[in-house]
Amino acid sequence: MSEQFVSERNIRFLLYEVFDASSLIKYPRYAEHSQEIFDMVFETALKLGRDLFKPSFREMDKNQPEFIDGCVKVHPKVREIMKICGEGGWISATAPLELGGQQLPSLVGFVPMFIYSAANYAASVYPYLTAGAAHLIYSFGTEDLINAYIPNMYAGKWQGTMALTEPQAGSSLSDITTIAEATDHGYYRIRGQKIFISTGDHDCAENIVHLLLARVAGAPAGAKGISLFVVPKLRSDETGGLVSNDVQVTGIYHKMGYRGAPITHLSFGDNDDCRGYLVGLPHRGLSHMFQLMNEARIAVGIAAAGIASAAYYSALEYSRERPQGRPPAAKDPLSPQVPIIEHPDVKRMLLFQRAIVEGSLSLLLQCGKYVDMEKVLEGDEKEKYTLLLEILTPIAKTYPAEMGILSVSQALQCLGGYGYCDEFPLEQLYRDARIHTIHEGTTGIQGLDLLGRKVTMKNGKAALLFLNEVEESIDIAKIDPTLKPYADKLEESVNELKKVTAHLVGLAMEGKIDLFLADATLYLEFFGIVAIGWQWLLQALAVKKAIRGNPSESDLRFYQSKLHTFRYFFCYELPKIKGLTESLLTSNGLTLEMNKELF
Amino acid sequence: MSEQFVSERNIRFLLYEVFDASSLIKYPRYAEHSQEIFDMVFETALKLGRDLFKPSFREMDKNQPEFIDGCVKVHPKVREIMKICGEGGWISATAPLELGGQQLPSLVGFVPMFIYSAANYAASVYPYLTAGAAHLIYSFGTEDLINAYIPNMYAGKWQGTMALTEPQAGSSLSDITTIAEATDHGYYRIRGQKIFISTGDHDCAENIVHLLLARVAGAPAGAKGISLFVVPKLRSDETGGLVSNDVQVTGIYHKMGYRGAPITHLSFGDNDDCRGYLVGLPHRGLSHMFQLMNEARIAVGIAAAGIASAAYYSALEYSRERPQGRPPAAKDPLSPQVPIIEHPDVKRMLLFQRAIVEGSLSLLLQCGKYVDMEKVLEGDEKEKYTLLLEILTPIAKTYPAEMGILSVSQALQCLGGYGYCDEFPLEQLYRDARIHTIHEGTTGIQGLDLLGRKVTMKNGKAALLFLNEVEESIDIAKIDPTLKPYADKLEESVNELKKVTAHLVGLAMEGKIDLFLADATLYLEFFGIVAIGWQWLLQALAVKKAIRGNPSESDLRFYQSKLHTFRYFFCYELPKIKGLTESLLTSNGLTLEMNKELF
Repeated sequence: MSEQFVSERNIRFLLYEVFDASSLIKYPRYAEHSQEIFDMVFETALKLGRDLFKPSFREMDKNQPEFIDGCVKVHPKVREIMKICGEGGWISATAPLELGGQQLPSLVGFVPMFIYSAANYAASVYPYLTAGAAHLIYSFGTEDLINAYIPNMYAGKWQGTMALTEPQAGSSLSDITTIAEATDHGYYRIRGQKIFISTGDHDCAENIVHLLLARVAGAPAGAKGISLFVVPKLRSDETGGLVSNDVQVTGIYHKMGYRGAPITHLSFGDNDDCRGYLVGLPHRGLSHMFQLMNEARIAVGIAAAGIASAAYYSALEYSRERPQGRPPAAKDPLSPQVPIIEHPDVKRMLLFQRAIVEGSLSLLLQCGKYVDMEKVLEGDEKEKYTLLLEILTPIAKTYPAEMGILSVSQALQCLGGYGYCDEFPLEQLYRDARIHTIHEGTTGIQGLDLLGRKVTMKNGKAALLFLNEVEESIDIAKIDPTLKPYADKLEESVNELKKVTAHLVGLAMEGKIDLFLADATLYLEFFGIVAIGWQWLLQALAVKKAIRGNPSESDLRFYQSKLHTFRYFFCYELPKIKGLTESLLTSNGLTLEMNKELF
Repeated sequence: MSEQFVSERNIRFLLYEVFDASSLIKYPRYAEHSQEIFDMVFETALKLGRDLFKPSFREMDKNQPEFIDGCVKVHPKVREIMKICGEGGWISATAPLELGGQQLPSLVGFVPMFIYSAANYAASVYPYLTAGAAHLIYSFGTEDLINAYIPNMYAGKWQGTMALTEPQAGSSLSDITTIAEATDHGYYRIRGQKIFISTGDHDCAENIVHLLLARVAGAPAGAKGISLFVVPKLRSDETGGLVSNDVQVTGIYHKMGYRGAPITHLSFGDNDDCRGYLVGLPHRGLSHMFQLMNEARIAVGIAAAGIASAAYYSALEYSRERPQGRPPAAKDPLSPQVPIIEHPDVKRMLLFQRAIVEGSLSLLLQCGKYVDMEKVLEGDEKEKYTLLLEILTPIAKTYPAEMGILSVSQALQCLGGYGYCDEFPLEQLYRDARIHTIHEGTTGIQGLDLLGRKVTMKNGKAALLFLNEVEESIDIAKIDPTLKPYADKLEESVNELKKVTAHLVGLAMEGKIDLFLADATLYLEFFGIVAIGWQWLLQALAVKKAIRGNPSESDLRFYQSKLHTFRYFFCYELPKIKGLTESLLTSNGLTLEMNKELF
């Protein structure tokens, strides 16, 4: 793998020049921070990415988890990673000070997640699933639960999981059947099966803490009867020791990639002795869980962008070093071959990757900033950021996930046959990347979420807020004559998006719900391209501002490359909405009408 | 893996209803054949696909070739496959009768290749590489060479290879340095390294026959100094026995997929005792080799479509059987879940796969028919088919290869988490499929071939011939009022293609060769979509004709499904050219201008 896997300069650019991280310090929540602290956070993360995560990237793939005698054995490096992530405060990075957290803004907190995913995605899952599970406990759990679980989770001793999927309920969560029977002892008795549970068991944590969805016995059917529980693998007995809580691992899945983390099949309460502790309100489990789901979806986007970043830098290194072929004009067969980075097609593939990686990361940090604004503001202002996050979450998950796969594929392509062989990391990155359009809600589910729920919520308020943000950026960009053509183009695209949205919502208003939602995945793709176009325009604005400030020569090179990648996106990616517009306006139920017997 | 991996009905439709295979019988070359024979060929191939190739699909992936003591050990099933393919006449299917071949038309001969690739791509490579290598020997070799090699190759005893790539010469073949020194004994002494040689050695063949490119000592530099040789692993000694020919395997590559076939690193003449036998004219090796290259490129397209076909039928089976979720209108959470094939997004993913698989196979069989017409005709008519093949070869390789990857990915997506796990075949198909945009010339190389060579060859004659074919189909389709809107749409697309071509060729005529070729890959994509749109229109025409003939109920269902997939292609795939048109007309050297220092 190449030495480089992320761009420090780009992270700095996004944090400070595009999203002005320092501006958050004025809010009391972040008042104890400073740009120096943010710098330290991400410089330390770079060092850990390089020295802690990256060295086991390949090893963890080659030595995947094993299921032996009912236990899951993972790479021993995981213990060290969890310990260091616990002690270094990485698991609790954005958690409140009073819980022992660092209370970092998410804008800053997303950066280490990106760095660690780029260095070794499978390894990064252990600490970050723990962080998400802990966040759910302290958001909705009692004081007792918080005290019982959070300290060990933040210390990296106990592993957190999210246990949702069941054999008959994957995408359709309302169908889960795991049962929780109330007892007189303050706990529930849990019985059921969960599948595809990431880090659901392993030997590098002292305990596993499942955030589990189950149905309280007698609860209404469907989504409204689901509750959230903490179900540990080991529970405390009277003496404070840990004893079995009747949670069995019944198997692990063998996956194409993402092999460093075990995905487990779990059985709860086979001996009728599995205790679960209610988190939040009964029957509100799904809505509580959505806090973690939304975080996990953004985390998937971050990881997808991270993997694509690692692939890009590997491809870049190879393209700089590999001599092959000559420019079309070179007639002399004895002239030396040129490095392949000089071929326009290779430049195009590299620009494509950069456009995806840096466009995605920009949108993800934009979401990070919205998370922070939502936390520090109140009333209408708070709601604004809540709604922006709601509408952008399916995009922030799916664009990096879907385009990340293509980006890694182009990186692999830069290496030709070597990209297909395991002496280079591309083939593993290609396998690893493929999970992201599946877990935490498939792309199809994200499309339904965006169009069926988010676009129409509160009479379209979230959608309007998004369009306002984009149009505000367009208006600013129009003032700069060199950016105006791009601002105009994005405006055109926004108008197309409005047209398509009106067409689809019109179908919904006629009661044609099936028709309205039939192409939701295409709509999601369209929306994603516009959102990333917006982010590139924001980046171009930041560049223009920086150039006016007389930057150093190396900074100037960075800004020029940014502008070039920005132009690439507008010339090669944004036009894709043209085809999508036509399909969305004319498909007219074509897929719906395909009788399933005809396949 | 699902029982089904190809559609027999679709193959029959393409062979007889679209491409009228029986019409070939009127030519003397094919006069001994009949539709009954063609039927028998493909029914036997189906049976062999099912019973011989498919059972070891997974096993060959799990037990990849090993390199032990200088030898390559492959799955023992390979021996049986080679034997049966030899004895059954599959290796010699399209070879002339006088060589012991079956003299089948390629239109028919492509079908078993498709079937075997769908059943087990890696296994299919052994017989088909042998067939290609033998074809090269009998096209350009002496009587002696033919007699010495062809019988054992057609019998499946000797393995054929194509040995082109060297460490410093992959895409840039003109840089090969393997040396052939003439001797007084009628052979050449070979010295050099070849890498990435498929089936370059293994223990299931009695001998390996390399068709190797080398430079005769003292030959001019560049492509014009390359000659073609037969270099066996074992050569005959005076007694007729086989002795070592000083060809060493120095290693094998560990690949992401396509694992059942070994890819080798070979060293020729380490002990100065490697003999090669010139094939054809000295210094004309590259042009001779292009016969095999072009066949191999079409074979890659066939294999890519085959893998996508297997993935489609697996996804279809799963989608029919897996209950999950409910239609948007179903409010009762206790109502049973529906099979996922009832969800429009799943239907869309399945239609996408069918559109790719059946559109690709159609174009490939179209090429098969052109191969046959080229063989049986003379003069201008022959040239017409030669040129059509020239211009369509890069498309017939790349469209199935590139779109096949996406098609398999959508198949995997239909299975959600299960698609990512190795209990289903999708993850292997996904890994296998990824090779096809790389070997036999990467997509970038195919783009340069199409735009830089084929479009402009003979003053654009090949391009014009292609456009004539398409426009002829459009004119016929316009007569049918239900097809006319589609014909009009394809005509529009053809006009866009002409506009883009004129723009690009204009740049070439101004001498801006770099600019002309910078977006060749996008141009290839554009051209491919139009070509597949044409094939779908041809299929729709055949359907319309069949429906007028009062088909059986089951046939009628098949024809309806064809029309639906045809409409899908026109509504969801063809519009993609809109974005490509814009990019191609406006990019204006954007990628070229990206200074390599800026990455």
